[in-house]
Amino acid sequence: MAMSQKINRRNILISTGLAGAGVVLGGGGGYAIAQTQGQRTMQHNEANIIPFYGSQQSGIVTPQQNHLHFAAFDLITENRDDIATLLKIWTATAATMASGKPIGEGTFPEHAAPPDTGEALGLQASNLTITFGLGPTLFTKDGKDRYGLASRRPEALVDLPPMAGDALKEERSGGDLCVQACSDNPLVAFHAIRNLARQARGLAVMRWSQLGFNRTASTSKKQETPRNLMGFKDGTNNLKIEDPELMKQHVWVGDEGLSWMHGGSYLVARRIRMHLESWDRDFLADQEKVFGRRKVSGAPFNGKEEFDAVDLNAKHPDGTPMIATQAHIRLAAEDTSIKILRRGYSFTDGMDITTGEQDAGLFFIAFNRDPRKQFIPLQTKLGQQDLLNEYITHNGSAIFACPPGTHEGGFIGEALFA
Amino acid sequence: MAMSQKINRRNILISTGLAGAGVVLGGGGGYAIAQTQGQRTMQHNEANIIPFYGSQQSGIVTPQQNHLHFAAFDLITENRDDIATLLKIWTATAATMASGKPIGEGTFPEHAAPPDTGEALGLQASNLTITFGLGPTLFTKDGKDRYGLASRRPEALVDLPPMAGDALKEERSGGDLCVQACSDNPLVAFHAIRNLARQARGLAVMRWSQLGFNRTASTSKKQETPRNLMGFKDGTNNLKIEDPELMKQHVWVGDEGLSWMHGGSYLVARRIRMHLESWDRDFLADQEKVFGRRKVSGAPFNGKEEFDAVDLNAKHPDGTPMIATQAHIRLAAEDTSIKILRRGYSFTDGMDITTGEQDAGLFFIAFNRDPRKQFIPLQTKLGQQDLLNEYITHNGSAIFACPPGTHEGGFIGEALFA
Repeated sequence: MAMSQKINRRNILISTGLAGAGVVLGGGGGYAIAQTQGQRTMQHNEANIIPFYGSQQSGIVTPQQNHLHFAAFDLITENRDDIATLLKIWTATAATMASGKPIGEGTFPEHAAPPDTGEALGLQASNLTITFGLGPTLFTKDGKDRYGLASRRPEALVDLPPMAGDALKEERSGGDLCVQACSDNPLVAFHAIRNLARQARGLAVMRWSQLGFNRTASTSKKQETPRNLMGFKDGTNNLKIEDPELMKQHVWVGDEGLSWMHGGSYLVARRIRMHLESWDRDFLADQEKVFGRRKVSGAPFNGKEEFDAVDLNAKHPDGTPMIATQAHIRLAAEDTSIKILRRGYSFTDGMDITTGEQDAGLFFIAFNRDPRKQFIPLQTKLGQQDLLNEYITHNGSAIFACPPGTHEGGFIGEALFA
Repeated sequence: MAMSQKINRRNILISTGLAGAGVVLGGGGGYAIAQTQGQRTMQHNEANIIPFYGSQQSGIVTPQQNHLHFAAFDLITENRDDIATLLKIWTATAATMASGKPIGEGTFPEHAAPPDTGEALGLQASNLTITFGLGPTLFTKDGKDRYGLASRRPEALVDLPPMAGDALKEERSGGDLCVQACSDNPLVAFHAIRNLARQARGLAVMRWSQLGFNRTASTSKKQETPRNLMGFKDGTNNLKIEDPELMKQHVWVGDEGLSWMHGGSYLVARRIRMHLESWDRDFLADQEKVFGRRKVSGAPFNGKEEFDAVDLNAKHPDGTPMIATQAHIRLAAEDTSIKILRRGYSFTDGMDITTGEQDAGLFFIAFNRDPRKQFIPLQTKLGQQDLLNEYITHNGSAIFACPPGTHEGGFIGEALFA
């Protein structure tokens, strides 16, 4: 694999003493020069920092940032201790980056690869959060116990069942580990994933990644509801973090199941391609029927304003339901016991040359306490009935167990490996 | 092609009177309902508007915005008048969007496809600029005059010659037309390209597109120099728009060549994939040697601060040059008569499954008065000698003639079709 280690040409030069022009190497003098000329430090800005350490991981009930870089990784080590080592390194690095500091404390020795790739030097933390998750294949693969962890796989960390409308691609699905980096500066999010991928070298390789260029949900009452690429306000009735009771009920794992996941959450990711060319030819009235809301205002059919309560029983004078029986809003809302915390992003990856259409849509992310009771029944119903299905295809899918948070000196997932 | 017109199921419903539930259709009463219930208007914000109309196109000597969506199009019409028609529609629509207004003046009739796709409703113009260009294949294709315009092809609009290090992909190169949308909000830039692509239906289809998530150059003295994905400050010595004399000399076509291009400029786009995994293993000293600048400060080797003048003749005490003979900065700067206006962006499109590496790098855009005297000799030299070549591959390439600007009622490229 391209990301595994190879012998570096310059390592050879150094070890044999054959230094190229301009590279200061050799005995004590060279080292001193390296220290005086080669060491530089960076200052950083305290603004816009979201604490990484805490009893829960950040990036879940954090007010949703505007930009996402998400990556799934495959482990290439045979050794369980390596996984704990990687998570230790990742935890410490994530805490550093979330604090707005460069990796390696801003020290850049001249005769080594820089500890930090540098593209975010001088930028603020920009509300960076880094959230780690563990996939089903970390525990069992091809029906076999992989690292002696099979008995510690949570029951809620199911393999997502096939669902109507799926057209999943292997190369956009699954993964042993995931990292969700969110920030209000896309370069800061990119930098986080890149540097974690780099630190995984020899232990894990990136399986897939996704840039999200604009949030399509609000997780805080203080945020305006953004629009998805279909032009509709998305996530008006999303769970909001200002209500800890709802978070406890629907997002955080309680004292059920295995103790290492208590205080964690399950992340479901779906790459939902939107067929924008077809959608854009559809009449406004039909677009609104599909969603069950007004396009411009975001109001439900029975109201005038976005946040007016949805009345699924509202009827036209002729007795037909205002909100169609297969409208997205009805299917998503009619079972009021099912709620998820959505944290999705719009994406585009250029043209799909196989279809001549833009490869764009929604990278759906949701956190739930138990996907068996939340995401799976919800999406099973939506996949079968939702009017929106004419215009979307799910082509990527993954599920991860996000352990609880940790304190300085600990690491994410520590209780699993204890 | 997927973007060409097809018969819309709902058109059929309407023309036959078989309306689905919830769709108000039919005689005068239905129309009246559509008018009262279905028409909604939007307000917009005057902030952050860059005028679209003017003697030159915007998006060239405009302070560089943070986000890019770029698209190249292939014409599918046989008719020259259709091209003028398309450019007229595009010009008017671009002016509307640049002013922060929705297409169709914010009126959304219920029984038609919305005139505006809607995802940017409620957002500010966010310094949106839309810049149009005409590719060589608009004039001649496969050696033949295509629309009777061959004699009007500017000599400076050459086919870019093959250059050392090219690994160009057809599906990321060329195009009869291009649109560069830049904004400080990525959704606003996405919206612009999408709606123009939509208006081109039946006349042109998108050939390729590129999202740029962060600028990698400054075009104004008021902007901080950003870093590219290699972690270096990029474009420190880029031309700055505050010097109109330099713009005249290096960016704008003067009274040379065909008159329809006077006041225009030539855009060169190159998709430069960076091999970040290799780069990240390279020692700091070598990375700096490649660029010829310090990584953290951006200072040239002969100075301490980013904007210290580069001294290509500076030598170490032992007589060797401080800036290596094949350093990027030396090759780019040694011929002081060659200058271009760079307006590039960092990109990532996820994993490249053929290599297991991130598909990321620099989407290079440059404007020049005559690519035969500027971009081509510069890149020919860089392609042959630049130390950076070990870490980059050019996999997309295109050139476009960007006509001068226009006034309200006119259209971009009008003089070509006169």
